[in-house]
Amino acid sequence: MSLKLVTLLTDFGHRDPYVACLKGVMLSINPNLKIVDITHEVPKFNIRYGALILKNVVAFFPPQTIHMAVVDPGVGSGRRAIIVETEKGYFLVGPDNGLLYPAAIEGGIKKVVEITNEDYFLKPASITFAGRDVFAPVAAYLTLGMPITRFGSEIDDMEKLLIPVPKFKGGNLEGEVIAIDSFGNIITNITQSYLIKKLKVGNMISVNLKGKEVSLPFVKTYSDVPKGNLLALIDSFGYFEISINMGSAADLLKVEVGDKITLALGGENNDSNRR
Amino acid sequence: MSLKLVTLLTDFGHRDPYVACLKGVMLSINPNLKIVDITHEVPKFNIRYGALILKNVVAFFPPQTIHMAVVDPGVGSGRRAIIVETEKGYFLVGPDNGLLYPAAIEGGIKKVVEITNEDYFLKPASITFAGRDVFAPVAAYLTLGMPITRFGSEIDDMEKLLIPVPKFKGGNLEGEVIAIDSFGNIITNITQSYLIKKLKVGNMISVNLKGKEVSLPFVKTYSDVPKGNLLALIDSFGYFEISINMGSAADLLKVEVGDKITLALGGENNDSNRR
Amino acid sequence: MSLKLVTLLTDFGHRDPYVACLKGVMLSINPNLKIVDITHEVPKFNIRYGALILKNVVAFFPPQTIHMAVVDPGVGSGRRAIIVETEKGYFLVGPDNGLLYPAAIEGGIKKVVEITNEDYFLKPASITFAGRDVFAPVAAYLTLGMPITRFGSEIDDMEKLLIPVPKFKGGNLEGEVIAIDSFGNIITNITQSYLIKKLKVGNMISVNLKGKEVSLPFVKTYSDVPKGNLLALIDSFGYFEISINMGSAADLLKVEVGDKITLALGGENNDSNRR
Repeated sequence: MSLKLVTLLTDFGHRDPYVACLKGVMLSINPNLKIVDITHEVPKFNIRYGALILKNVVAFFPPQTIHMAVVDPGVGSGRRAIIVETEKGYFLVGPDNGLLYPAAIEGGIKKVVEITNEDYFLKPASITFAGRDVFAPVAAYLTLGMPITRFGSEIDDMEKLLIPVPKFKGGNLEGEVIAIDSFGNIITNITQSYLIKKLKVGNMISVNLKGKEVSLPFVKTYSDVPKGNLLALIDSFGYFEISINMGSAADLLKVEVGDKITLALGGENNDSNRR
Repeated sequence: MSLKLVTLLTDFGHRDPYVACLKGVMLSINPNLKIVDITHEVPKFNIRYGALILKNVVAFFPPQTIHMAVVDPGVGSGRRAIIVETEKGYFLVGPDNGLLYPAAIEGGIKKVVEITNEDYFLKPASITFAGRDVFAPVAAYLTLGMPITRFGSEIDDMEKLLIPVPKFKGGNLEGEVIAIDSFGNIITNITQSYLIKKLKVGNMISVNLKGKEVSLPFVKTYSDVPKGNLLALIDSFGYFEISINMGSAADLLKVEVGDKITLALGGENNDSNRR
Repeated sequence: MSLKLVTLLTDFGHRDPYVACLKGVMLSINPNLKIVDITHEVPKFNIRYGALILKNVVAFFPPQTIHMAVVDPGVGSGRRAIIVETEKGYFLVGPDNGLLYPAAIEGGIKKVVEITNEDYFLKPASITFAGRDVFAPVAAYLTLGMPITRFGSEIDDMEKLLIPVPKFKGGNLEGEVIAIDSFGNIITNITQSYLIKKLKVGNMISVNLKGKEVSLPFVKTYSDVPKGNLLALIDSFGYFEISINMGSAADLLKVEVGDKITLALGGENNDSNRR
């Protein structure tokens, strides 16, 4: 089967004509392609936020999907335009500013090409809307089965973007808030593997958020605590998350993306405790 | 023709990756299915609001459509996951928390199955995201023509959710605000049939909203009154609605969903008046 | 190839069931048609804003696309429902209130038909939701290849809507803010052609916005100035735009759609200067 599914992730919002232009351009090249919106509400210019969402969704799409992503404050400047082919089969198309990097690592980087072949650009190509004039046509031509080397030469120095990892420090695990979803769930960079054998469902856990101590039950699902109560759980993407059953933990605790979080996990990894 | 249209109704919003995950999972199972978003902006956890929207749209979709709905505060707890097959031909997939009930009644309940067959779940299935791991795959397999009994056993005690009906009391009709749309139109549970012979286009009508008396012309369409004026009409879904021509009635009258509304309809149904 | 792509532009928003109804109705008539949302966030009742977006996107869609647009404060009143066939091949379907006019001119008006043939309406047709009951079915039947004359008789007095053009006055060019996008970019009705030979990339330019003088560098792209700085450029649709690199110019300058803007361009077109 040919590649014909394209996903879109941008910070364009839904009110302006920008997303529609991407779709019109793609369907003009291949009327049979299918488009799925990941999100167009990445906070403006927030490359890291977009990168994280992209990384988290790629696993749920068919192997040969083409994921196009545009959070592109450097458009028209020197930043490169790239295509990433992954070991898992999916493709990534977008600016080389780190946005694609976590999803590329997730899929295993097979080949990265810098898009330079203007034959496949929309003409006349604007300077400030590469999404419409470069990335959309390239993504559409990919759905027609065009090899990625047709669009430019291979490069080996793709821009990296590393999502910070948590660190053990004494008996504590120090992490960071990486997202707050529309429910007000506080999502951290602490993943399940850091907590194995250290935290059991049903335990109370001490969390320090922005210098404030909170004690929470570590549970399986939101409704394990009464409505309005705080809780912690491993969410459906494997992240340690702080929530309120049917409420917004982020509003209550006044937490923002980037805030530090410390979990008191006891002595197992705590060398200083052994002295 | 095979079933291949799936609609989605959730309270997930548009910013987070959740809706995209549903779509990716479904297209991984059946790349040919078609997805239409009903809305993803159901107020968080508001089962009744979602139920009402779902009930109101099903009639406008092709008979064999699969409507998947997820407003699911009880996810991961004991609440059941179900499929409803209706007499009219459409299917409903979602949590058994009342969300599907009004749309099920609208279509005529033919069969309800509790989803228990884990063979069709995404693996590993999370505890907190049944939309992605249970409902999306089930909806996608339904588009492949799988009979609903494959997913579990029939049940006959589906969770009910009743939308309140208006009541005649003296010469008055007492109803309730069931929705406020993005135009600020105040939509009530009073349907056309309650007003036959009692209200004629062109009449003035006395309405009591939260204890405040308002006198309104009962008209056919918004522009029957000057811009900025209040009016009442039967809307395109058959509901009695209070509006402002090119303005927001809800903002002006400070009305919210759940507020009581009383219409003075005169003596026809008013037994006490006859004494 | 048959016409099978329909785009939608409305002021319905995303929360209510209205957009879904349009899609359900269309897919009931032609299950194979493809729908692309332009936007559903046109400011309520703002015909001119919707008209501008529609005009700006049509060029990017395949030639035979059917563009349906509904910003329709006069629904149910005397305003006509129309189909426009353009020289460029695309069709426009919507209310005859000016909304379709700029896009019609853009495509070259070939034929305009007033929709009167109720055989193709949804039954029973409501008075207040022509989008669902008239425009959606008509758009769907068009995708089945039905000639536009089937829906009614030709008319030659389509409602006009003119987007104001800038004017030279002395050494100044006087224009107007026609849109503010979700990035806070201030988009004006001054197009590239007005500035040829008058403004060079790299120049500083004096702009008067609501009586306030601002001096800006005229550049090629946003990141040509440091983060947080004001700039002016010709945007990807050919409009003169005032922006902030990674910030909102509209917020900083407190500018709204409709505000006047004056560019000091020197003496070339300034007769009074010659005296």
